Amino acid sequence: MKRKATQRTGKKDADHPVIQKGKLQLNNPHIQSGEEDVLYHIALGNKSHDLPSLFHDVKFVCMGGSPNRMKQFAEYLVSALQVNVPSGMGLTNIACGSDRYVLYKVGPVLSVSHGMGVPSLSILFHEIVKLLHHAGCSDVTFFRLGTSGGLGIEPGSLVITEQALDGLLRPYIEVATLGKTVQHPSRLDPDLAQDLLKLAQTDPECQGHSTYFSKTMCTLDFYEGQARLDGAFCDYQAEDKMAFLRKVHSSGVANIEMESLCFASYCHRAGVRGAVVCVTLLDRLKGDQITTPHEVLEEWQRRPQKLVASYIKRYLSGKNAT
Amino acid sequence: MKRKATQRTGKKDADHPVIQKGKLQLNNPHIQSGEEDVLYHIALGNKSHDLPSLFHDVKFVCMGGSPNRMKQFAEYLVSALQVNVPSGMGLTNIACGSDRYVLYKVGPVLSVSHGMGVPSLSILFHEIVKLLHHAGCSDVTFFRLGTSGGLGIEPGSLVITEQALDGLLRPYIEVATLGKTVQHPSRLDPDLAQDLLKLAQTDPECQGHSTYFSKTMCTLDFYEGQARLDGAFCDYQAEDKMAFLRKVHSSGVANIEMESLCFASYCHRAGVRGAVVCVTLLDRLKGDQITTPHEVLEEWQRRPQKLVASYIKRYLSGKNAT
Repeated sequence: MKRKATQRTGKKDADHPVIQKGKLQLNNPHIQSGEEDVLYHIALGNKSHDLPSLFHDVKFVCMGGSPNRMKQFAEYLVSALQVNVPSGMGLTNIACGSDRYVLYKVGPVLSVSHGMGVPSLSILFHEIVKLLHHAGCSDVTFFRLGTSGGLGIEPGSLVITEQALDGLLRPYIEVATLGKTVQHPSRLDPDLAQDLLKLAQTDPECQGHSTYFSKTMCTLDFYEGQARLDGAFCDYQAEDKMAFLRKVHSSGVANIEMESLCFASYCHRAGVRGAVVCVTLLDRLKGDQITTPHEVLEEWQRRPQKLVASYIKRYLSGKNAT
Repeated sequence: MKRKATQRTGKKDADHPVIQKGKLQLNNPHIQSGEEDVLYHIALGNKSHDLPSLFHDVKFVCMGGSPNRMKQFAEYLVSALQVNVPSGMGLTNIACGSDRYVLYKVGPVLSVSHGMGVPSLSILFHEIVKLLHHAGCSDVTFFRLGTSGGLGIEPGSLVITEQALDGLLRPYIEVATLGKTVQHPSRLDPDLAQDLLKLAQTDPECQGHSTYFSKTMCTLDFYEGQARLDGAFCDYQAEDKMAFLRKVHSSGVANIEMESLCFASYCHRAGVRGAVVCVTLLDRLKGDQITTPHEVLEEWQRRPQKLVASYIKRYLSGKNAT
């Protein structure tokens, strides 16, 4: 069930991810450092760009669906981290050679959009991990800052993901690989999640709304996959929908979105620390449509940004994040 | 196996999709025309916008992954269809209230981006079908204009999809719906595909490259899902990859991409005619990386646009499309 104030236990169990120490190594023997590697969808490459020079100092990768939101987050980080921007200069989209994603760098932080859904995030994640490897980065932490539908909690609340589940409530992602279905477990760093939760409860920037630590259901579809009645197609009744959403809720799921499962399993596979922080835009136990005014949604969408920026700021200032 | 010049047989079998006649009806009894319907991800709605006035004349919906490419296609259509643009005016992105997709209208044609991957296309497809329904549109034809990896054919070739298959070579999409896996068959209009194939062989705009009529494999992942060796993770060997790609090729698949399966099954479910036309950017039997110069890729990416624009132009001029 969802918890608002669980304390860190420090317990390491079999599900705890193994985090790489030192320079990020790829779990792929086919990528040789001397050979050309084109990061096609972000329009970068290890031969066309001096990746170590551009990215060696990166310690945080912050991902979110919307390009505008990730640009806003980059702008917010400039002031939050007091990054010096020389007169006459400004942030630029480093991936501007492609229109698939946007990529900003603010000091040691990358702010990058991943589009909508698991496949879109998957492409970006592969290419960002390769970028960090080619750049010689070490000890990088990943965040997904997202929007979601809530279950039984007030819209505008934050949910820090305890575990990501698929649309059938299974804690792994299936990737059809060479004609076979391969399952990769979803494992996020529990210590990082607890640090964020504690910070949400104490940081002045993060007050005025609730923050939960709960499971997140990740679907491959926004309408039928999330039991909505308002898609172009719908083969079930309102009572079937409610029975399913109540079952999901009673399984300890506080929110539903479309990327956390891939993010969590790929963080685990890459050996990087990862956390998912989403704001809820509505309570799915009460409706399907997002009708909250735009300016209210905009304020809500800044809530994950404030929490993650606060964590990064404390980390960089040498304080314990909490 | 792939064919370059199969003639239309006119045969209707059990797999032939049933096309709606007259005004587009939704297969969803929960959408009532009097109630508000917010098309959230394209920032439109039936109460906030006069959808019949804006969109009643739409006869074609053209989708593609990249926002820039779909803007270019809209601009190309202005000249190809000789659409009158009043002095001092220009095309605008109708979905500019959101940054998830772009949406342009050129006479009776919508040119819209769907992002990358099935989930991203799924959201857009639901909302476009609802838009057409609210607008009172009838007899609308859908096209996906995409990029893909080829199998055993020269890069720059066009592939018109005969049937879309998933990463396990199955001709249906699975949607986790209310906790159960539901399979929706992939059925494209064979007559429309044959009209396009014939046009590709005769239209002066479409010469200088080959066009194939073949199966298309649609994956949920660009790297492991498409048997690449150059992702951030790879648990298989080069010979495993080649064995799999040869098996896919020998199953009659000429190209691999990431959206056709959802597009095909949703066209069938919506009762609209649909076709998938993709250019191949490389031959996957020869490599993984896309290293062709940008300007060559740009020219190749215009090839699906030329074919579809030519089809639409002939349809609108009252000629038989072929």
